[in-house]
Amino acid sequence: MTNAPYGELERHFARLSQVWDVIAMLHWDMAAMMPQGGAEARGEQLATLKVLAHEILTAAAMADLLAAAEGQMVDLDDWQRANLREMRRIWTHATAVTPELVAALSKASAACEMQWRRAKDESDFAAVLGPAKAVLELVREAAQAKGEALGCAPYDALLDEHEPGARAAEIDPVFNDLAEFLPGFLGEVLDHQASLPAPVPLEGPFDEDAQRRLCVELMKVVGFDFDHGRLDISHHPFCGGVAEDVRITTRYTTDDFMPAVMGVLHETGHALYEQGLPKTWRHQPVGQARGMALHESQSLLVEMQACRSREFITFMAPLLRRAFGGGGEAWEAENLYRLYTRVEPGMIRVDADEVTYPCHVIMRYRLEQAIIAGDLAFEDLPGAWNDALEGFLGLRPANDGEGCLQDIHWYDGAWGYFPTYSLGAMAAAQLFDAARRADADTMARLGKGDFTTVIAWLRDNVHAQGSRPTTLELLLAATGKPLDPGLYRKHLRDRYLGS
Amino acid sequence: MTNAPYGELERHFARLSQVWDVIAMLHWDMAAMMPQGGAEARGEQLATLKVLAHEILTAAAMADLLAAAEGQMVDLDDWQRANLREMRRIWTHATAVTPELVAALSKASAACEMQWRRAKDESDFAAVLGPAKAVLELVREAAQAKGEALGCAPYDALLDEHEPGARAAEIDPVFNDLAEFLPGFLGEVLDHQASLPAPVPLEGPFDEDAQRRLCVELMKVVGFDFDHGRLDISHHPFCGGVAEDVRITTRYTTDDFMPAVMGVLHETGHALYEQGLPKTWRHQPVGQARGMALHESQSLLVEMQACRSREFITFMAPLLRRAFGGGGEAWEAENLYRLYTRVEPGMIRVDADEVTYPCHVIMRYRLEQAIIAGDLAFEDLPGAWNDALEGFLGLRPANDGEGCLQDIHWYDGAWGYFPTYSLGAMAAAQLFDAARRADADTMARLGKGDFTTVIAWLRDNVHAQGSRPTTLELLLAATGKPLDPGLYRKHLRDRYLGS
Repeated sequence: MTNAPYGELERHFARLSQVWDVIAMLHWDMAAMMPQGGAEARGEQLATLKVLAHEILTAAAMADLLAAAEGQMVDLDDWQRANLREMRRIWTHATAVTPELVAALSKASAACEMQWRRAKDESDFAAVLGPAKAVLELVREAAQAKGEALGCAPYDALLDEHEPGARAAEIDPVFNDLAEFLPGFLGEVLDHQASLPAPVPLEGPFDEDAQRRLCVELMKVVGFDFDHGRLDISHHPFCGGVAEDVRITTRYTTDDFMPAVMGVLHETGHALYEQGLPKTWRHQPVGQARGMALHESQSLLVEMQACRSREFITFMAPLLRRAFGGGGEAWEAENLYRLYTRVEPGMIRVDADEVTYPCHVIMRYRLEQAIIAGDLAFEDLPGAWNDALEGFLGLRPANDGEGCLQDIHWYDGAWGYFPTYSLGAMAAAQLFDAARRADADTMARLGKGDFTTVIAWLRDNVHAQGSRPTTLELLLAATGKPLDPGLYRKHLRDRYLGS
Repeated sequence: MTNAPYGELERHFARLSQVWDVIAMLHWDMAAMMPQGGAEARGEQLATLKVLAHEILTAAAMADLLAAAEGQMVDLDDWQRANLREMRRIWTHATAVTPELVAALSKASAACEMQWRRAKDESDFAAVLGPAKAVLELVREAAQAKGEALGCAPYDALLDEHEPGARAAEIDPVFNDLAEFLPGFLGEVLDHQASLPAPVPLEGPFDEDAQRRLCVELMKVVGFDFDHGRLDISHHPFCGGVAEDVRITTRYTTDDFMPAVMGVLHETGHALYEQGLPKTWRHQPVGQARGMALHESQSLLVEMQACRSREFITFMAPLLRRAFGGGGEAWEAENLYRLYTRVEPGMIRVDADEVTYPCHVIMRYRLEQAIIAGDLAFEDLPGAWNDALEGFLGLRPANDGEGCLQDIHWYDGAWGYFPTYSLGAMAAAQLFDAARRADADTMARLGKGDFTTVIAWLRDNVHAQGSRPTTLELLLAATGKPLDPGLYRKHLRDRYLGS
């Protein structure tokens, strides 16, 4: 039996979870299905639901219920206590902002997202500047208010939305070290790569339907359950929907099937996390994914650690040949491995290789810090972006479509999100290292397309934990230490300077 | 300026409308996109939203607000008064049932619908009997409660949900007359048809993609705006979504393209009604479609009155030939017209011709009256269904898949809905007659694929009226008289006993 105030909180949060699930489904539909003319109405629907959620969360009784439940913690078990801690955290975020701000931000983001799609296609930053500044203004207002409630800087408050407990003061040194390590390492990798015979390129075009069928086949190999999910198309690939009905999206181009295939495997990693969360706590805060850094660790573990390994690519090679009727040297496993681990500085984050990817993230992290702090005006973003990329990778975008318009995040209101990608990459290396230590046959199994032990290990050590431990506690329990960037560097050195 | 209680009611109902819109989108997704494993979660989402809607509608303040606004009617204009009348009607329906019953009915319907899909495919009535009886029990409970609130019989209360003001006592004589007229008329039609040369059948198979492209082309001809809608596939074709984003579904079979083409044109009629509702009143009760009989009149006017006319089929013939590479006598307009107006008694309502269709409706109407009244047990439905069909059309289903499992309605909780199909058919004949009198060139225009004047007439006389007039008032204003089944019989005689 749960005590009365705690039990009542569970009922409120269960209802809240249902509303959030509906919001998730409508977001998927907006990206994958909705005609453009439906955008305004959808914006209103989402705004209404977000205000309803906000009202449930900030109802007058909530503060007293939280205080009363916290006064009776002795009656609660571990999961319930962690649930109560998460309820308090979510409530603090929510009560920091007014319902009017929540509604305005939702509507502005939906309007801006639609405008961004056109602006990106036409490389027209000016076309989205107005809507994007409107979103930014509201994001800064929310960050200010939440910073005050959480006792942290506005940008930290944005980080905390995506990765609870994350603070710039802790991320800065890690990213600064990485920013120092990467340029030299990249040079070594490019030299090493140049010393090997160049991989033979694959000749397209690659039929989009064949790509789709292959993606479905590979999703099943990794463990995606199509009775509880779908694969569709959207501009910006993502994993959406709800745990019982996960909606993955990707995009295809006939020039190259690699982005779609690896993108889908990446989203499958996210999907498995959602599908593996503790069912008992499905509609409670403690039953949700721990944070976006760990979420990204799951997608990167599947994509980067497992699926780009020589072992898995050797398993995948005949499937690729069959899918596209490929043959000859170009389609041999070793050549495919070299293509799939090719390092080549480029403009586009989502197409970036594993070595240059953190450069894309760190520059966005620094740019958004400057913008939120008011040190960089949003209208000056294109130039600042191009300078930053040139500084890191020696490349300058020819237009904003391949520059500051390439990612949906800022235009959709997701500020403070980018650093989770590289925090996730480091956590992925560390978790995969632990999984391999737990089962010495891990790599041999991946070579047969057998993900059972690695997924089982993740189920136990990550997925089924939900939000009961903090990210730090989870890493300690699963791997024996806090976040250790050294394992990430070791992974990069092994893969890119090894044989 | 609106007075205070009325203005506050408008705000509550605007929010309610947004929640209903979200429910509509999730229903579309459930039928057209959702994997089967998502059903239980979707049922919970829908139940939560319906309870939220119910709470908005039945909030403690609502009764006082309605009474206060009704006491100040002198301050309201025509539209506002009609809006207030509709608010009262909706509120009466809602307050008659408990939130628990609303939630239970929503969950039971979602669960039953999924079960029904399998049961229908496998012709296994027993597999859906349990869930269907659970739905029925809850429907009867709701009908009882609403009947008491509205001062009418339980079955009338169900009718009133779909067609406000409709009562069995008024439908019975109309349907009884029709039931008397049809068997003899059907005999005449079959004799007349037999006296003409038999139409040449079209040779399949017909590519599904080609069918889809043709459907899209024809939807555009009629006036469907694809920037504000989509066409997808579902087991049971329907028109869903919201006014700004109408989601039409159909199903294809390679044996025959006619069901898909005419089904899509039918749903396009529904869609045009939604797209033409008064935008000023978009999220108020008075801005909604008048009722399901008038809604059906719009789909049948487009499908049966306009698109199955000799004139439109003559326009469509070359499009059909191009779509499927058809040629020769079978693909001549006159042969296609005879195929598209062929009368042939069959088992399936949605495939039925215009002459036998009312027989399907009337037998369902009588069966559901008997079931709701408790005179027929649901487990006895298969036999009663087969007897009824045999009585009307001389045919007996070989299994329940082509019998009492063919329609989604009862399994999805929609009792009291069937009669609106034939009420709609009669209204369609009457409205089309008036539209033709308003523009003598109507049929010549349809022969060129020009729907502009007929749609403009519908926009003014039906769509833009929303729910301001009652169905009777709308028919009087648009056609000069109340529902006149004589015009429907005249239409049938002209088309099926004419040249």
